[in-house]
Amino acid sequence: MTQISYYRGGDPEALFRRVSPTAAVSEAVGAIVDAVRLRGDEALLEYCEKFDGGRPESPELPKEEWYALADQADPKLVAVMERAAENIRAFHSMQRREGFELSQPGGIRLGQRVLPLDRAALYIPGGTAAYPSTVLMNAIPAKVAGVREIIMTSPAKGGQMNPDILAAARIAGVDRVFRMGGAHAVAALAYGTESVPRADKIVGPGNAYVAEAKRQIFGQAGIDMIAGPSEILIIADSGSDPTRVAADLLSQAEHDTDASALLLTDSEALAKAVAQEVEKQLASLPREAIARASMEENGRIIVTENLEQAVSLSNLWAPEHLELCVEDAFSLLPEIRHAGSVFLGRSTAEAIGDYWAGCNHTLPTGGSARYASPLSVDDFVKKTQHIYYSPEAAAAAAEDIALFARREGLEAHARSALKRKEGQA
Amino acid sequence: MTQISYYRGGDPEALFRRVSPTAAVSEAVGAIVDAVRLRGDEALLEYCEKFDGGRPESPELPKEEWYALADQADPKLVAVMERAAENIRAFHSMQRREGFELSQPGGIRLGQRVLPLDRAALYIPGGTAAYPSTVLMNAIPAKVAGVREIIMTSPAKGGQMNPDILAAARIAGVDRVFRMGGAHAVAALAYGTESVPRADKIVGPGNAYVAEAKRQIFGQAGIDMIAGPSEILIIADSGSDPTRVAADLLSQAEHDTDASALLLTDSEALAKAVAQEVEKQLASLPREAIARASMEENGRIIVTENLEQAVSLSNLWAPEHLELCVEDAFSLLPEIRHAGSVFLGRSTAEAIGDYWAGCNHTLPTGGSARYASPLSVDDFVKKTQHIYYSPEAAAAAAEDIALFARREGLEAHARSALKRKEGQA
Repeated sequence: MTQISYYRGGDPEALFRRVSPTAAVSEAVGAIVDAVRLRGDEALLEYCEKFDGGRPESPELPKEEWYALADQADPKLVAVMERAAENIRAFHSMQRREGFELSQPGGIRLGQRVLPLDRAALYIPGGTAAYPSTVLMNAIPAKVAGVREIIMTSPAKGGQMNPDILAAARIAGVDRVFRMGGAHAVAALAYGTESVPRADKIVGPGNAYVAEAKRQIFGQAGIDMIAGPSEILIIADSGSDPTRVAADLLSQAEHDTDASALLLTDSEALAKAVAQEVEKQLASLPREAIARASMEENGRIIVTENLEQAVSLSNLWAPEHLELCVEDAFSLLPEIRHAGSVFLGRSTAEAIGDYWAGCNHTLPTGGSARYASPLSVDDFVKKTQHIYYSPEAAAAAAEDIALFARREGLEAHARSALKRKEGQA
Repeated sequence: MTQISYYRGGDPEALFRRVSPTAAVSEAVGAIVDAVRLRGDEALLEYCEKFDGGRPESPELPKEEWYALADQADPKLVAVMERAAENIRAFHSMQRREGFELSQPGGIRLGQRVLPLDRAALYIPGGTAAYPSTVLMNAIPAKVAGVREIIMTSPAKGGQMNPDILAAARIAGVDRVFRMGGAHAVAALAYGTESVPRADKIVGPGNAYVAEAKRQIFGQAGIDMIAGPSEILIIADSGSDPTRVAADLLSQAEHDTDASALLLTDSEALAKAVAQEVEKQLASLPREAIARASMEENGRIIVTENLEQAVSLSNLWAPEHLELCVEDAFSLLPEIRHAGSVFLGRSTAEAIGDYWAGCNHTLPTGGSARYASPLSVDDFVKKTQHIYYSPEAAAAAAEDIALFARREGLEAHARSALKRKEGQA
């Protein structure tokens, strides 16, 4: 049964635990990345055969085959995905931003342009954990950002790609699909091969090998965050329904034995009722073993003195998902400083965010919500600055710049500024 | 003399070279990070003694000492820095952004809040390369973002901190100053010690040890980019003044023997004149040896068939700094897809951006302008999403969410959504 703790002040670290990333697979990944970088397609296809369970004819899945396979997806699922995609587009469209220009006296113009990436690649795991929702959540922000070419890659397990994934890619506006997985896919996209174009940024989830490959190629291409195990923290008051709270904890716990599901409540009665409900609901879950291990190892039900204390503990933990199952959730929102996504009120199950509402479900884990953000349109654009100084403005600033540069010991900088004064009146 | 090449199509890679980051110092850094993480202040002060050239009384420089030292800075420099700071504030204030809220029918509210970081730390190298301009460029965006506490750290070489750096910190609005450098400073800020508070993000330049330390603690705290050697690409037409172009190339080359300074021009006459000017100006530079080595090893003067070709080569290289020394620079700007900062026209020396105009001088290097951005206010905020679904809206969406979740094999997600339908009409 999930352990109930009582928090009465003191060191809060003891209440929480976070699972560290698994140990290094960096040597194996380093060899794969080098081989693909140096030998291109030849090495890539060897690894596809070895790790993906099949050597595709070519890395790219031709568009006719892609669309024919996508047509095999369940039409009901396709209809649901189309509506979810609309919601995701609506939310992410609000994130679009413009550049600016700033004119200053004397003929000075400064500016910032916001430009979409040329090519973004989306890695999608294959096999049993093939999540079409992740395709929507990664590809639609890229599309809204205006990325010129969006590539999706996913391993063709046993030579066959998942129709749900392919249908989601079509709905989301993916341009090209590749059938390759693992560290070799990441390496091919980072460096390019004869038949895989080089991507400017590689995003999406993956196992430890994929995560390590992304870490290793970072700099050659951009990457999104390296996601850790998923987490939820629920703050609930005595008016909350224990069956809902328990169901929401379990929706997190079923992901992975490393997932963390925490409840903070000021109500001892609710704490006990939720603990019982968790047991009850666990028994009938298809993924009971995973969810039970997660709850036993990382699950926590913590009784706090009041809700303010719960909020301040939450800010310390900086959860990926935070549910505020309280009477007036909006009044607590301004107090929440660190969280990936906040679910307000007793009706907003985390699953609504995972699949439906339109906010992104790729969120900062492991406390990184202190400084990191949900995946967004911002991840698929970059900014570039520009400066124009008129001859007069450049001449007027030259002496100040020269003084500053000389103080830093950079005489060539000083002279280059002063060259704009010569020949001026 | 700087080599002149002619580009007449074909593989452009052969024209450029980029210096790779130096080999790993990761083992040494790993030991330092572990020691500071496990032994705190004790280890930190040992490393300060060993590497910074002095064991400070305490890691923090008391404010009275800081301000007293800052008062020793040259008043002329202080006046210049105050005006530069105004320009930096003006530009970065344009980068401030608001969150949004999106209401949808049926009682749905989605939103994104943009929140400043709680605590940001700025690493500033000490010794000969003490650059107060870097203090302004890193601390002012954090201040404009509204970061609650801004910390600066810099080694006290020989027990003494640089007054220019300290004056810049006061002008920029830094809250606390620490006297420690190297990998140990980064580790202390990432994990916190008895007397160093844990920072949410660590930014700023540093040597190979500092860069490797930032790489290693990434995840524990956020970091900015890992900067590589500095670069400039100048596109110049026949109307450009070779003395200015040469001066601008050299202002880059004097930074570092690994720095790259490139000229692309459609004018063979200009190419030859600039090559001669570079020789001439080199002879009188205090940092001649560095600038000469940089020009000889990484400098390039390339004659292209026309300016369009120069622009497309520039987009391939994605330079950190790009000067457009041409007749109508603004007409070329929309064609520039990948560059950190663009300097328009014949008067806008890169040094104007380094010190004065107000755009940031911390820019993406090594081709990362394809996907990365100049340092900005965005680096000192994070976003957090929120979702509210009314009971009715949650009930209405429950079946669709359940279908989607079940298709992904996540039954607990489905049940958690469906719990919002039970009890509804």
